[in-house]
Parts: sequence; C-alpha cells; structure tokens
Amino acid sequence: MDPLDIISNLHNVRPVFQPIISAIRHDVKGYEVLGRYYSDGEWKSLGSFFHDPDVPEEFKVEVDQYVLNLAITEMLGHEGMLFINRSAKQLMVNNGEDLLEMLLSFQEKGFDMDRIVIEVREHDFDEDFEALNHLLLYYKTYGIQIAVDHVGAKSSNIDRIRQLEPQILKVDTMLTRNHDTQGFQDVMYSLAMLANRIGAALLFENIEDDFQLHFAWKHGGRYYQGFYLGKPEFELSSKESLPTDISGKIFEYIKREKTLVEHRIGLVLSWEQKLKALLSRWEGIKKVDRFIEHVTEEFHTESFRMFICNSDGQQVSSNFRKFEKWEREPDKKGSNWAFRPYFLENVIHMKTLKKGTLSDVYSDIETKELVRTFSYPLTDQYFLFIDIDYSFIFDHEYLLI
Amino acid sequence: MDPLDIISNLHNVRPVFQPIISAIRHDVKGYEVLGRYYSDGEWKSLGSFFHDPDVPEEFKVEVDQYVLNLAITEMLGHEGMLFINRSAKQLMVNNGEDLLEMLLSFQEKGFDMDRIVIEVREHDFDEDFEALNHLLLYYKTYGIQIAVDHVGAKSSNIDRIRQLEPQILKVDTMLTRNHDTQGFQDVMYSLAMLANRIGAALLFENIEDDFQLHFAWKHGGRYYQGFYLGKPEFELSSKESLPTDISGKIFEYIKREKTLVEHRIGLVLSWEQKLKALLSRWEGIKKVDRFIEHVTEEFHTESFRMFICNSDGQQVSSNFRKFEKWEREPDKKGSNWAFRPYFLENVIHMKTLKKGTLSDVYSDIETKELVRTFSYPLTDQYFLFIDIDYSFIFDHEYLLI
Repeated sequence: MDPLDIISNLHNVRPVFQPIISAIRHDVKGYEVLGRYYSDGEWKSLGSFFHDPDVPEEFKVEVDQYVLNLAITEMLGHEGMLFINRSAKQLMVNNGEDLLEMLLSFQEKGFDMDRIVIEVREHDFDEDFEALNHLLLYYKTYGIQIAVDHVGAKSSNIDRIRQLEPQILKVDTMLTRNHDTQGFQDVMYSLAMLANRIGAALLFENIEDDFQLHFAWKHGGRYYQGFYLGKPEFELSSKESLPTDISGKIFEYIKREKTLVEHRIGLVLSWEQKLKALLSRWEGIKKVDRFIEHVTEEFHTESFRMFICNSDGQQVSSNFRKFEKWEREPDKKGSNWAFRPYFLENVIHMKTLKKGTLSDVYSDIETKELVRTFSYPLTDQYFLFIDIDYSFIFDHEYLLI
Repeated sequence: MDPLDIISNLHNVRPVFQPIISAIRHDVKGYEVLGRYYSDGEWKSLGSFFHDPDVPEEFKVEVDQYVLNLAITEMLGHEGMLFINRSAKQLMVNNGEDLLEMLLSFQEKGFDMDRIVIEVREHDFDEDFEALNHLLLYYKTYGIQIAVDHVGAKSSNIDRIRQLEPQILKVDTMLTRNHDTQGFQDVMYSLAMLANRIGAALLFENIEDDFQLHFAWKHGGRYYQGFYLGKPEFELSSKESLPTDISGKIFEYIKREKTLVEHRIGLVLSWEQKLKALLSRWEGIKKVDRFIEHVTEEFHTESFRMFICNSDGQQVSSNFRKFEKWEREPDKKGSNWAFRPYFLENVIHMKTLKKGTLSDVYSDIETKELVRTFSYPLTDQYFLFIDIDYSFIFDHEYLLI
C-alpha cells in the first residue's frame, strides 16, 4: 500500500476494536483500537504503514487521529476503556497537543479522559526518556492512563518501568512459546512482583489458546487480550459474543489451583507428622548433628540438604548433604542466614504457630536448581531446615508451580 | 596522566585490594582488585585511564593483565575470591584469550579458576549481547564466576540479567541517596525477588555508613563492600583489620528485625481477638453487608476498605470504602480476586489454620498508596479482607518495612 494513497483516501480507513477481558468481572473491560484500510476489495491491517520508518510521522499522526475520532465517536454510547498505540516519535509531534485537543473535545461530549489508555513501548524511550516521561506525566494530569507495552521482552527495564508509573504493564504471551520456559517464568515472576509492588495491573496480550490464558491467569494477569478471547472487529463485542466462556475457564483454573494448594498443604502436614514422631530423639543442642542423622533417614527421598539454626539465624549444626549417601559438612556451622528475605519473619511465625512452613520455589545458589525449603520448629529456639530436592519437586507437579 | 607514561612505566603500577564481606560468615569473602599508579610522589587511581574512551583497548588490557598478574601472585598464599573489572570491549580483545591463558597458568600454581569473579556491566552489552554472552558462557565452563555490576541503576534489564545467569548481582548502594527512596526500594525489592528466583547472590558496593549496611542487609545482601567495611589497600585485609565490627552490626539488625516482626505478629493477634469477639454478629451470607458494618466500627482507624470473599475468590459482599464516613459500593459484589498472586494459597491456609494473615506491603492499584491487607477466616467458606490505610501503616514503623 502506498502511504500517499492512504493519506488521500482516509474515507477508506476504519477502526476495529479488539476486546480486553477483565479477570475480576470476566467481562469486556475495554477495547484496543487498530486501523484497517479498504483496498482491492478487502480490509487490510495498517500495521505495515505504522511500522514503516520511511512514512513521515505526520502521516501516521493524521491517520491515527482519523481512526481515533471514528473510534471514540462509536464508543460514545458504550462503556469501557479505549487502548490506543502511540510511538514515542508520534507522541512528540507537535508536543502531543493534537491528541490532547481531540480528547478534550470528546470530553465535552461525555467521553471521560480516564477511559483512554495510551500504550507506549519502553525501548521507544531510549532516545529522550526525560522529554517523553514529562509528556506522559502531563497527560496523566488529565486522567489519561499509561500502559507499557512489550514488557517481558528485551525491554524489561525495572527502573524505567517504575519511573513511568504506568497503570498497566502489557505482556506479550507469545513469549511463552519463543522463549525458554524457565527463563520466561523467572522474568514473569519478577514482573508480577514488580507490578504488585508499584500498583500496576498486568495485561496479557496475544492469548491464542487455553494454555496461554491459564498462564496469564496464574501469573497475576488482571486483563487478557488475544484471538482466543476475541478478534479485532468493526463492532464493539460484548461478553455474550466472545468465542470463549471466560467464567467457565477461570473457574476451572481456580478449581485446579485449589487442588494443587491442598496437595501441598497435605504434604506439609504429613512431613510435620514425621517430624513430631522424631522429636523424642531430640537430645538438645549438644547432640544436634546426631538428631539430623535421624531426619536424613526419614527424608532421604525428599531432601538433598538439611541443617538447624537458632532464632537469630545462626546455624548450630553441620550441613548434611546427600551425595551417594549423606555427608556431614561441619565447617558450615556458625553460618548466619538471617539476611535472607523472610528468614526471621518465617522463624518467628513458626515459633508462634508451632507449625512447619514450605517456602516458594527459588533457585539454590550452589546448585542453581529449583528448590523449596521446608522448615519446622523443633523447640522455641531451634529450627530445622530441609531443602527439597529438585527431582522430588519435579515428580510432584503441585510442588513445581 | 599520559597513557603512554603508564604503559612504558608498568613498574610504577600496583594492585590494591578492597575487601568484600560475607553476611553468612561476617568475614572477608574476597577482594576486588583495582590498579594504582605511582606518579609525582603519590599513588593515584587508574580509574581515569580505564574509563577514557581515547585510550586504546589494547593499552587497557596490558595494564589490567599486569595488575592481575601481581594480584593473583599475592593471593597465592591466601584464601578468598578475586573480583576483577572488565569492560565488554576489553573482554573482546583477542577473543578474551589473554585473560584465560593467564588464569590457566595460575591454576597450575594452585589458584583455582572458581576463585575469579569477572564483573561486567549489563549496559555494556548493548552492542553485541550474543557475542559477549557466548564468551562469558565459555569462561563459565572453566568455573570462572560472573557478576553483573550496577544493577538497580539505569540498566536493570530483567531479561538480560537472567540470560547471563550470573552468580552475583552487584548493586550500587549510593543509589539509596541519589534516587527517590520509594522508587529505589521498589527496584531493590524486585531485584531481590529476581535474584532469589534465579539463584544469584546480591552484593552491595559503596557502603559508607551504618544506614547503608543496614539497607543492604535488609534487602537480602549476601556480600558487602565499601569504605565503611574497608578501603582498597596494598595489603590483603583480614576480619581483624576491618574498621567496622560486622558481627556486632548484623546482630543489631537481627535484634531490630525480630522486634519489628514481633510487633507485627502482636498486632495481628490483637486484630484476631477483635474479630473473634465480632463473630457472634455473623448472621450468614444473606446479611453479609450488615456484618461488615460492625467491622468498620472496630477497624475505623486501621482500614480504608473491606469486603468478604468465598473460597473461590468471589466477592460476596459490597465493598466498604472510608471517605468522610464509610460508604457501601454494592456494584463490586461478584468480583473475583482469585487471579491475584497468593490469593488462593492464602485462603486455603487461613481455612486450614483458622488464623488471620497479614500481607506484605504492596501498592494499591486504585490509590497507588502503599497498603497491606489483613485477611481473616470468618467460616470455612467466607473470608474477610481488611485493607490497611497508608496513614496507619505510616504511623507504625513495623508495618512499613
């Protein structure tokens, strides 16, 4: 398509709307607006036009403004948010005033500014982060929301994402396919924690099947978008017209997740029983290593390493490590583990509740393998730490995720 | 200093060693080696030489090799790791073979390769990430360790950090000063979670006072470096020669942290008591909103929002929001919160233990303020969520951190 053709035939351009689904209401929360161009008897995507670096930014702004005008006009009688894409360069044309003026004129017609979400890409900001950040802050004062697109890809810069204070982080779910899975899960976990910490919602886009919707739900996704949930259409789709029964799907995931958690809790309870039975063998701190020998017998399959700490995080026993058989590493005695996140909190909770506790999955610094730690209060002062072997975790799906 | 002077007077160059302290052993774990040049009667830093882009990379490699040779020779009779700085460009000179050859020759003399940590900067990788990543992987096969320097600054790219699979992430503690505090804490929290997940240790550098050491300890720092703990010296310092009593300091932090956690647990217990007393007012799900009215009276100071969910995460009550007085938002009934990280796990734990639980600090998506949520099992099926007001959190330090 010739860009000049498009610019001089704007009457052949129309907006399409792709629904964005809310995990909270299982309903359409809003729409991402995209452009279509009628040519040679069919409607074509304007993607290549917008991504072509040779097309002048002014052209792109003109087409975007035309599409947005039609889109908001169509939305006037409807509810929901409108997600629009703007590159950094487009935003900076005329200091972003054209977009703002149009939105102000629609505000007078009853379309509130806070229904608009501008999607920007973090790596777009390389050239002039400060100027763009400034413009977005200005937009925000009008209630306009900001989404950072393509997080989880090459551009997941924690510091910049936080500085932009976006309302939404948009994750490309396709990365679950292209990427090595463990790596992407690590990145997603960190992003979910970052989003929770800075008060941003996660939106997963390009969801194409049940597996990806489940992934998005499981990783804290508040909004979902993709062919599995609805294609871009000329009409504003409603919950009833969606191809997938969102509520049904999400209740499946909930049921499944509850089962996994109940299995984990059941396992922890059975481990607690094993340890309670062993407590009669506890002969005090002076015979601490001998006590652990009994524990290694009971947890030979589950564990690869164990030790005992006091309530200050000081290791009071040797390390026990499973190689061919269990070996004692006496030089680890005297180590202090209180600096580890949640260590002291965990210890004091165990002491208060007199209950064992199972950590989240993390990577062991020595082995780099995924592990969990089961910890248990032997007395008010001494706490047993049993590191669970990766092979045991791998054999029990409910421990892996 | 003229680079040519330095190159032709290498006998005036000497290594200095700055100690790196372990949070586990409260002892010297290793040393970062830096270069000094004797000129005009004093020893000067070689920093400007290494950072000058006009100095040919070959010159830098030559000086670095000279310094490293002396440094390892000095380390031969000692224990500990050796941290060395290399820019991406330096590493790529002669495909990084010079460095490897020297390390191999020292290995024959008894200096194990796994005592070497190469520090690289993530943003150094912009130009040719793949080639460098490949070289570092090659180094790793010899046991050489990798640290990514300056994480937490502009270059905290989650995805790239993960791909490098470094053993150590090095954080510049000075950022606690230059940066807006809340922002840096958010970044640090996310980095600590990432490090835990990928099995990397956090090293905080440039620690200059007690406050910064405490910050590093509290954020999961396994290693510490800075003038507060030891300056770069010609001699290899030992624990006894350090200016600060690390063990004493860390036990102060442990004591303080335990007090904070105990205060939190005490508060949670008192909230549980208040709710237990209210349980007689629970008249079942049909009068759920009326029950919450009683709770708002008891938690007027602490909370700004509350609601009740079933064990599937489905909100079965209105939202109650505190403005001038408490207001009911009936349209929030029917929301589902099960997608939120830890929601179902938390609910099933409450049900099993019949205990309330207090969340970590996070940012509320609506208000963007830091909040915590206190949740409590009213029955086996229904769970009360009390969102704690930022002003209450701010007034109670033990809730803030």
